[in-house]
Amino acid sequence: MPLNITQKLIQDHLISGEMVPGTEIGLKIDQTLTQDATGTLVMLELEAMKLDRAKTEASAQYVDHNLIQEDSKNPDDHLFLHSATRRFGLYYSRPGNGVSHPVHMQRLAKPGKTLLGSDSHTCANGCMGMLAMGAGGIDVALAIAGEPFYVKMPQVWGIKLTGEMPDWVSAKDVILELLKRHDVKGGVGKVIEYYGPGLDSLSAMDRHVIANMGAELGATGTVFPSDKEIKRFLKEQGREDDWMELVADKDATYDIHEELNLSEIEPLIAKPSSPGNVVSVREVAGTPIYQSYVGSSANPGYRDFAVAAEIVKGNHIADGVSFDINPTSRQMLTDLVKEGHIASLLQAGGRLHQAGCNGCIGMGQAPATGRNSLRTTPRNFPGRSGTREDSVFLCSPETAAASALKGEITDPRSLDIDYPKVKDPKKPTVDMNLLDAPLPLEDARKVELQKGPNIASIPDMDEMPDNIEIPVLLKMGDNISTDEILAGGARVLPYRSNLPEISKFTFEIIDDTYYHRGKETVKQGGHAIVAGFNYGQGSSREHAALAPRYLGLRVALVKDFARIHWQNLVNFGVLPVTFVDESDYNKLEQGDVLVGKGLRDKIKQGQEFTLEIKGKNEEINVRHTLSERQVEIMLKGGIINWVKARNVTV
Amino acid sequence: MPLNITQKLIQDHLISGEMVPGTEIGLKIDQTLTQDATGTLVMLELEAMKLDRAKTEASAQYVDHNLIQEDSKNPDDHLFLHSATRRFGLYYSRPGNGVSHPVHMQRLAKPGKTLLGSDSHTCANGCMGMLAMGAGGIDVALAIAGEPFYVKMPQVWGIKLTGEMPDWVSAKDVILELLKRHDVKGGVGKVIEYYGPGLDSLSAMDRHVIANMGAELGATGTVFPSDKEIKRFLKEQGREDDWMELVADKDATYDIHEELNLSEIEPLIAKPSSPGNVVSVREVAGTPIYQSYVGSSANPGYRDFAVAAEIVKGNHIADGVSFDINPTSRQMLTDLVKEGHIASLLQAGGRLHQAGCNGCIGMGQAPATGRNSLRTTPRNFPGRSGTREDSVFLCSPETAAASALKGEITDPRSLDIDYPKVKDPKKPTVDMNLLDAPLPLEDARKVELQKGPNIASIPDMDEMPDNIEIPVLLKMGDNISTDEILAGGARVLPYRSNLPEISKFTFEIIDDTYYHRGKETVKQGGHAIVAGFNYGQGSSREHAALAPRYLGLRVALVKDFARIHWQNLVNFGVLPVTFVDESDYNKLEQGDVLVGKGLRDKIKQGQEFTLEIKGKNEEINVRHTLSERQVEIMLKGGIINWVKARNVTV
Repeated sequence: MPLNITQKLIQDHLISGEMVPGTEIGLKIDQTLTQDATGTLVMLELEAMKLDRAKTEASAQYVDHNLIQEDSKNPDDHLFLHSATRRFGLYYSRPGNGVSHPVHMQRLAKPGKTLLGSDSHTCANGCMGMLAMGAGGIDVALAIAGEPFYVKMPQVWGIKLTGEMPDWVSAKDVILELLKRHDVKGGVGKVIEYYGPGLDSLSAMDRHVIANMGAELGATGTVFPSDKEIKRFLKEQGREDDWMELVADKDATYDIHEELNLSEIEPLIAKPSSPGNVVSVREVAGTPIYQSYVGSSANPGYRDFAVAAEIVKGNHIADGVSFDINPTSRQMLTDLVKEGHIASLLQAGGRLHQAGCNGCIGMGQAPATGRNSLRTTPRNFPGRSGTREDSVFLCSPETAAASALKGEITDPRSLDIDYPKVKDPKKPTVDMNLLDAPLPLEDARKVELQKGPNIASIPDMDEMPDNIEIPVLLKMGDNISTDEILAGGARVLPYRSNLPEISKFTFEIIDDTYYHRGKETVKQGGHAIVAGFNYGQGSSREHAALAPRYLGLRVALVKDFARIHWQNLVNFGVLPVTFVDESDYNKLEQGDVLVGKGLRDKIKQGQEFTLEIKGKNEEINVRHTLSERQVEIMLKGGIINWVKARNVTV
Repeated sequence: MPLNITQKLIQDHLISGEMVPGTEIGLKIDQTLTQDATGTLVMLELEAMKLDRAKTEASAQYVDHNLIQEDSKNPDDHLFLHSATRRFGLYYSRPGNGVSHPVHMQRLAKPGKTLLGSDSHTCANGCMGMLAMGAGGIDVALAIAGEPFYVKMPQVWGIKLTGEMPDWVSAKDVILELLKRHDVKGGVGKVIEYYGPGLDSLSAMDRHVIANMGAELGATGTVFPSDKEIKRFLKEQGREDDWMELVADKDATYDIHEELNLSEIEPLIAKPSSPGNVVSVREVAGTPIYQSYVGSSANPGYRDFAVAAEIVKGNHIADGVSFDINPTSRQMLTDLVKEGHIASLLQAGGRLHQAGCNGCIGMGQAPATGRNSLRTTPRNFPGRSGTREDSVFLCSPETAAASALKGEITDPRSLDIDYPKVKDPKKPTVDMNLLDAPLPLEDARKVELQKGPNIASIPDMDEMPDNIEIPVLLKMGDNISTDEILAGGARVLPYRSNLPEISKFTFEIIDDTYYHRGKETVKQGGHAIVAGFNYGQGSSREHAALAPRYLGLRVALVKDFARIHWQNLVNFGVLPVTFVDESDYNKLEQGDVLVGKGLRDKIKQGQEFTLEIKGKNEEINVRHTLSERQVEIMLKGGIINWVKARNVTV
């Protein structure tokens, strides 16, 4: 059967399941990527798993998110991450080297490989003929430890590109056109695969732009072929040997078909506050702006900055505009400096920031209250810029630069200049220091993790006991969100690498005595909580399962669970069960003691079993829906223990 | 009588007093400088004074401190400052244009003029043959409004420079040598004036380095002659016409004499945690470092970065070192880019930050906990870096660059290379966009101040009434600090431009009911507080007087006052009085009501008068020590009202 590229990549990495869209498959992961905001917990998980050495072909830790050092927390994290990469055999990219996605593309991406990353824009490396996917931190930790990644087999959405982009239109407009057509859920459950003659005019970095913002379509991944352009790119980076051709078989088919004529695209812009809210720039031209922001992983290429530089060269930006330049990698910044583009941007009034994620993720360059900000970043969700009442538009570097000059949203075609056809530097810089290579195993084993005062190891957690006699510490209603279980925000997030500290905020919004009461149960076998429908809705944060578990939570008994939190509970060794008879919810009071005997066998043997309410002469029938593998994980006390048991080689 | 330069500058600007060291003199101020951290309150004060137009020759507002935009507060401040400069006829320097001191030097500094700035390193511009002094925000607001600046006539400390600096020694080592000799209080009450043949080898920017850190010696100011080197500098900046010669008269004398042979200086370093803790680099060579930081107003020159670039060129910094490059102005950064030095720094692994104050003032680049940080900045007070337990060393760019390469403190003379003799670019950039010029008066009058949600005007405050009947809201003990009156720190400081909000923290540490109780007294004629000795010790922050005043404080009755807080109370219209008989302190209870009649005349007529305790049949004899001018200010309800009365032209 002729295969498309996505199918080839999946077939090559299939460990379990079948290639039937919508069914679960297990995939071998060749490479991983972590950034610092999610990476510290991943490294603590590897430590807790007692991992000796990464089992992937290449795993890289990038420091690109938390570069602002207003106190010791971020630099302490950097030192910890550096030491962890030395210990576990990972690549390390220092702060200032740049955003994970383009640096990974320059140094490690290989056609035909799978890449899993704890960053939702990991999909950007799909431009290299890879299957590149974002995932939660624990999934990436498991992949580093050699475990497969489980995901639903996607549909493959083939998009045939024809024609060539007109002047003043660039790759960002291509993905904005797709967002205009399909909005932010159009790609859910799908991998987008591009093919056709239109590819010839898209450079590897242009494809990066398009693959990156596949995340905004909700797609599982985006795949481009590995063709002669990818060969050229790898050669330029001194990695020609890493190239292999990867194209769809002749007569390969797609689950969904679409065609896009590049020559018909015009400059587009996503209005506040959704990447799917796309109109033509013409329609909003004249809107005054406060900020024009060029950079981020959604427009990381040399050409993206160079074209902006050529547009503003010799002129000065309008009064009152903040023209923020956010380079994406040290290597690209070096070339932009050498070729004179940074001088053009500076002399036009640009504010040059350190290479990294910066304003894209609200780490600097927040706009003024209520003022319009134009950005080449991938997302404009409300408040993501750092400013609560923000007004962020997404556009191409061409539109951003033209608008900076005019002080209002400007269709770049209306500038009275020729379209600058930017060429790559003749001898592009290849900075081999962007990544520190893993240490040899013997040296790695000697490395100690360096933990600042705000970094704490994940403590050992015990297995699920056979017999429990545990109090119900909280009885809650319906729709309890993970924000109520463990809040996010600036008060709580700085403790993301410090479980003992972050656990102090657990259920604080619901009952601020929970932390102390929970902690007391730890040595007495733990406790239970009871809740209604849709328990654990909202954010997927893993701490909302890990922190209560750390405080002794063993059983969550509810009417039903939100899916991701349910999975997180299992992963951290909490038994999630539902009422067989929902009216039993009324039998339970806070303070009741639940008793279960011979639980381990009962859980293994069937989905339903009974818990007794001590002293009340009442029984509650409960049900679990764990797979065989999940039962094993939960009984072991969570996935860290489960992997640890498989990894310990001593 | 032959005069030295300092005496000439003072004589030319003397409005009141006599040139007798230690006595108060009033000086005409020609130029002012404000930065954004202190500038927002200055602009609100100008608004409250109903100033129509700045009365100085040139006043410039720089945005260099709060460049990190994690939310809307800083960008809202930038917009406010921009609008205020448009309204009041000031120059404006955008965020990203650079640190106030070097930009002021490049664009506005003029030999023979006085400069007052709300930044303690304003003294740096003394390198241009100016009398440049740092002061509090209200002093600078008054200067902008055309009022004289009052200061004690300094002693003049003449330092004769001979010889020439050896290779690997630069201007930073010169000022470190003086700090080694005299420590951080050696310059108190003095202006340091440099002269002698050694000057010939010090460029204008080298002198800037030395003048800047006169602040660390505690000096009132530092003065260099305006000689042919200053002429060269001004010519390079396209401002040759602004030059005038200013040198000491032949046979001029100094109050204090010193000689410094530049050829005898070696590379020096200030150890944690005082700029006066100076030893030779040799003595601490080999100490491991975490960070090497080049930049700030203490080493702002092109040569300071270029020499570091030449030292690291072609090599890569040591593993685990954060090599932070903090350019000081857009203009200088442009030249460093054009001349290839930024490329050298980037390729060596430097982290390039936006031009501004940055890590020098803890706004980014805080070091990891307990790790050694080498910096070319002027100060290493504990915690100033942003990290509570920091370990900061101060040194020259040569020492910083050499140490970055080696990963440990390194005497640059021990490098196996020739000393890079850096030359200025042949055609230095002159960026005329560094400052937006003031608007013409008619346009300025049309400008509205742009206040984000966190910026609030200073409300009108009434005059001191003739009769008072006010409750004592707090009775406190000895040594109450301004931190207890109004805390600093990250919780409070963001409200520095919002008096209604910041006032909520007033006396919070002592009695958290004060805010509400105080506010209720505002419409009933206000209230009093009672305290013991040394009331208002500590930080000079003006909010500690302004916030209680806003909440109705009219009389502070204490055993004695700390000097600066006493002055701040007068400036904001609070009557500060002491007990004639200290044992009367015991007669007063919180809740007592103080009654005073015909107060305005009594205060004018003499220092002592009587307040009655209502219903207790007790009288308290009190004393004020206000000058005639201060009585006028206090009775008017504070200095804002006092200036407003003189400025209102409508």
